[in-house]
Amino acid sequence: MFEASVGGGIPIIRPMKACLAGNNILEVKGIVNGTTNYILTKMREEGLDFDEVLKDAQAKGYAEADPTADIEGNDAAYKTSILASIAFTSRMDVSKVYREGITKISAEDMAYAEKLGYVIKLLGIAKQVDNGMLARVHPTFLPVKHPLASVNGVMNAIWLKGDAVGEVMFYGPGAGSLAAGSAVVGDVIDIARNINDGSTSHFHCTCYERREMLGMEHVTCKNYIRILANDKPRVLASIATKLADHQVSISSMIQRARPDSKAEIVILTHMAKEPDVADALEAIRSLPVVTEICSWIRVEE
Amino acid sequence: MFEASVGGGIPIIRPMKACLAGNNILEVKGIVNGTTNYILTKMREEGLDFDEVLKDAQAKGYAEADPTADIEGNDAAYKTSILASIAFTSRMDVSKVYREGITKISAEDMAYAEKLGYVIKLLGIAKQVDNGMLARVHPTFLPVKHPLASVNGVMNAIWLKGDAVGEVMFYGPGAGSLAAGSAVVGDVIDIARNINDGSTSHFHCTCYERREMLGMEHVTCKNYIRILANDKPRVLASIATKLADHQVSISSMIQRARPDSKAEIVILTHMAKEPDVADALEAIRSLPVVTEICSWIRVEE
Repeated sequence: MFEASVGGGIPIIRPMKACLAGNNILEVKGIVNGTTNYILTKMREEGLDFDEVLKDAQAKGYAEADPTADIEGNDAAYKTSILASIAFTSRMDVSKVYREGITKISAEDMAYAEKLGYVIKLLGIAKQVDNGMLARVHPTFLPVKHPLASVNGVMNAIWLKGDAVGEVMFYGPGAGSLAAGSAVVGDVIDIARNINDGSTSHFHCTCYERREMLGMEHVTCKNYIRILANDKPRVLASIATKLADHQVSISSMIQRARPDSKAEIVILTHMAKEPDVADALEAIRSLPVVTEICSWIRVEE
Repeated sequence: MFEASVGGGIPIIRPMKACLAGNNILEVKGIVNGTTNYILTKMREEGLDFDEVLKDAQAKGYAEADPTADIEGNDAAYKTSILASIAFTSRMDVSKVYREGITKISAEDMAYAEKLGYVIKLLGIAKQVDNGMLARVHPTFLPVKHPLASVNGVMNAIWLKGDAVGEVMFYGPGAGSLAAGSAVVGDVIDIARNINDGSTSHFHCTCYERREMLGMEHVTCKNYIRILANDKPRVLASIATKLADHQVSISSMIQRARPDSKAEIVILTHMAKEPDVADALEAIRSLPVVTEICSWIRVEE
């Protein structure tokens, strides 16, 4: 076993392999990196910017001197591929897990998320889609009522959906020597029980299927987009037209005039295909009135 | 195994027996009855009274025609004794689990809970105390920030604290044929693996200790008390004196005059011993100015 590999002390590997073995697990979402969850929680609670909070996290020992593995989503990508391999009973190549870190998340995005009824979390998301499987790690807009939304600070949680059990979530400390030790000792006791039973291993590898690993072009989701543009007539119409041209439909919109005669435009889309959104944003970026596409954050419901 | 016995489809029995086997589990708290959680959630969200919501729950099939086992806490007591027996590796006699149902919870208590930063949940609480163990099922004031506080509707969750792992919570559907089926199939697959391994049983009974089962006189907790009294001078002083006489110290207090010249007095106490609180309330009840002790609800932090 390798219970400590994901979620520290949280029992998750064995429950998926044993208790939930009768399920076809359709979807796994996890807050599997405590460092980034600590940073995002503190940004939200205190309205601070990323750089400021990172320094505080480093001072407290929650982030390493070189924080790349955490803040760029690499650590979460490894954990997500382990979760997905067990959930979907098919080995997942971690190099094919899309990853995007939290370094570009701003205090503005945090504030808009709150206004729109969401929180921003770095999620590892793995789903069965189109007869294959897909995994991605990126900052995500999550409705405040989702069980993962209230997982704060350095705590971790793994949420999953099985075809029989429905929604299940496992919550606990994702790091720390005693928490990880708890998982390792659980494994050791399992080995001792095996010896006592005269059994070689109770849980064999469960990756007995081969599912194709799909790319981001298979993602369909809602999206949060924040754009900075000149505060001129028809700017909104031209942006909306570009979205419509690419089959991206708007669910809600906020426009805010700024003192510097720029307009900040925030858009929530309906479900849209990833390539369509990317193409629409490319077209919007080339509009003369548009200064910058500040943020594009995917939404999970 | 008997994974379906508590929390429906939520993996909890095996994780405690295996993954957390290296821990001394000090405390278990659970929302283990979906019917009462549905009723309390709806009372809170819609400001309704118990009787009204019970009828709605019966109409929707969330409560049985004879709802006694659920609303009086008996079902939760059975589940709590199973959880505690595994957590504390010592068999717990269910007849000694204190139980108190939710029938007396009023819309007023719900509103005061919210004002004070709490929610009311029917919790099964089991703790190791004074070299023994103690289990009780009763409505509980729980801080809104506690992970169990946002478990709503028919969902269940079990929160526990281990000396190594720290705080862990398991969340999911506590009832439903498919959810329970998921747990049963997990057990069946376990049996099949045992046969395949030539092993008799991987998880034997883990109740290898004998801990004394203690009574409610060993409980120490904070308390919420709501009293109806005549709105006269010195009424508050006389109540506060009776509390002080019994070593019950007040943490916060709300007094509200009512149109019928009665005063409603709401008290949150500091940590106090159960027998002291009971004696203090007995003394307060016999004060001539006191009309009624409307509520006494224990608080967990």
